[in-house]
Amino acid sequence: MTSFPQAAPPSRNTSPSTPDKPFLRTLAGLPSSRPPLWLMRQAGRYLPEYREIRAKAGSFLELCYSPELATEVTLQPIRRFGFDAAILFADILLVPQALGQGLAFRENEGPVLEAIRTAGELVRLDPKGIHQKLAPVYEAVSRIKAGLPKDCALIGFAGAPWTVATYMLEGRGSSDHAAAKTWAFGNPAGLDTLMEILIEATAAYLERQIEAGAEAVQLFDTWAGVLPEQEFRRFCIEPARRIIGRLKDKYPQVPVIAFPRGAGVLYDGYAAATGADVLGLDYTVPLGWARDHLWPKTVLQGNLDPRLLVVGGPALAEGVHRLLRSFPERRFIFNLGHGIVPETPIRHVEELVRLVKGAEVSA
Amino acid sequence: MTSFPQAAPPSRNTSPSTPDKPFLRTLAGLPSSRPPLWLMRQAGRYLPEYREIRAKAGSFLELCYSPELATEVTLQPIRRFGFDAAILFADILLVPQALGQGLAFRENEGPVLEAIRTAGELVRLDPKGIHQKLAPVYEAVSRIKAGLPKDCALIGFAGAPWTVATYMLEGRGSSDHAAAKTWAFGNPAGLDTLMEILIEATAAYLERQIEAGAEAVQLFDTWAGVLPEQEFRRFCIEPARRIIGRLKDKYPQVPVIAFPRGAGVLYDGYAAATGADVLGLDYTVPLGWARDHLWPKTVLQGNLDPRLLVVGGPALAEGVHRLLRSFPERRFIFNLGHGIVPETPIRHVEELVRLVKGAEVSA
Repeated sequence: MTSFPQAAPPSRNTSPSTPDKPFLRTLAGLPSSRPPLWLMRQAGRYLPEYREIRAKAGSFLELCYSPELATEVTLQPIRRFGFDAAILFADILLVPQALGQGLAFRENEGPVLEAIRTAGELVRLDPKGIHQKLAPVYEAVSRIKAGLPKDCALIGFAGAPWTVATYMLEGRGSSDHAAAKTWAFGNPAGLDTLMEILIEATAAYLERQIEAGAEAVQLFDTWAGVLPEQEFRRFCIEPARRIIGRLKDKYPQVPVIAFPRGAGVLYDGYAAATGADVLGLDYTVPLGWARDHLWPKTVLQGNLDPRLLVVGGPALAEGVHRLLRSFPERRFIFNLGHGIVPETPIRHVEELVRLVKGAEVSA
Repeated sequence: MTSFPQAAPPSRNTSPSTPDKPFLRTLAGLPSSRPPLWLMRQAGRYLPEYREIRAKAGSFLELCYSPELATEVTLQPIRRFGFDAAILFADILLVPQALGQGLAFRENEGPVLEAIRTAGELVRLDPKGIHQKLAPVYEAVSRIKAGLPKDCALIGFAGAPWTVATYMLEGRGSSDHAAAKTWAFGNPAGLDTLMEILIEATAAYLERQIEAGAEAVQLFDTWAGVLPEQEFRRFCIEPARRIIGRLKDKYPQVPVIAFPRGAGVLYDGYAAATGADVLGLDYTVPLGWARDHLWPKTVLQGNLDPRLLVVGGPALAEGVHRLLRSFPERRFIFNLGHGIVPETPIRHVEELVRLVKGAEVSA
């Protein structure tokens, strides 16, 4: 539920109690003439100015850990497209690295972690010690906040424990998530131990992002869709509920967006149980079903297929209008149903911005 | 809906109007003391006797096109485990190859097709000419039927048009199905043309399998879960509805199982619209939801997570019992929620068989 208690403003967060940025107004359930717009992975390889900074940074990790460069790439899509929210540029695997797990990004291969093979190895992970390593991220958040246009909100983020665990246990991306699912079925108590560590680290990481200036946070559970119901409840819903509960205790006015990609039918139980203010819909979620089952519970965000943004033309316009018709006026944030892909033409993003902002006139 | 008209037996199919095999009795909605059991990809690399034949065959395609060897590997798991149904050993990409598309299986890489790049290339595909190339498959069906124990049913199968199209347009497996989705969004009329060809070829292929002795058929839509609702309706539901309609016109007594993997919420619309007798559930479908929303419409099949069969032990037993409790007595076929994986220990499959067959006593 969207709940913005007006009393007792937070001690360190700088957001006003009555939000004036369009993105935050929508999250607070206030009316708006059009849905606010941002795109998952909006700072990325489809932008020539990103590729230039990326080349200059040396490695992907150096880019993540440079407050100056991370700020620059976060702000690039805001300058170019005027999105209603910026999202911190970082990677979900910075948390395992801060916990002490070895991490490398190899060109054309993606991230490689030193996989955890046994529950005994979990004692090496220290959730209390993460902030020193993650300090450059918090520094980036402060710089981004200072550099944002006044009507643009700043979103912090983290990977959800299950998704982060799939990489920690497998060592790398995989198509079947065999290692993590083997823990989920064969050693659920061991996986619970890892979940405890990740719940603690993720909540602490997001708290520091909020303290540095993030006005909302998003929890990405990219691999939520590979678990059966029982394991989904234990390793996706329960950790999200606890992280959100902890954030709400401390920063009740900061909205939390949760994105359990691929949850299917279980989006419903997730919305009901986690306390997320906003549910991010992947592109497979039917809009009529979402309106009937999820919209009464939370603000919704999504869910244009990123491939439609590559294709462009009348198909893109039709997809955009279908979304605008399905969630008229408010309690909806326009976004993709997954991250923008590198081959997306910039002119299609420009067209999307025109279509969504043009909705202002016709709404 | 399960519908077994008792009048007008089929001209060429040899199944009796009142089925006596447990698998067919369940499909007909008749009571049984325990659910019938078979496993997707039950003839495969987890069996040493399969690996021996596979090595002898030379290549994967030579195995598919040898009636003798395909029969042998189809029967291996029946001999070893006493499953209630055998499924023809073949590959969904034999149909594109029979349509004239170049196909190779490379070791450690999987199938590679000469990708179709433009709608103009579709005229080269000839659905009328497929049977000569596919004759060894029909021959295998006849041989398998002759070699089966009398209480074991024979399932024929084909890939559903959307899933087959993803390979035809991409040339190989991909994680994002970019080529096929680009057609779906950017050239839906072109994709409709390909769908017409595949509907015709798939229906004709399954008819011939039925004529050769298949007592039920399964349509595998492995990649149904990557499309938004509108495209799912156009490229998954509609082709399945037409193929099933055509089969039902000719062979009304032959049950059709459809497996739209990853359909999520859209399983419901799929069950209602396609006319499938049985819906195969992937392992993410919540059992309570399936019972309430899908079971009233069709017999259900599924959906144990294949990774649970690798893990074994108490977790496996618990997963099996949860399924048995969820669908008591009848109108349920015990299966996995995806294909069995190569590292599955044989003793775990033996344990699964004991658990499901043991359900006979306690039911």
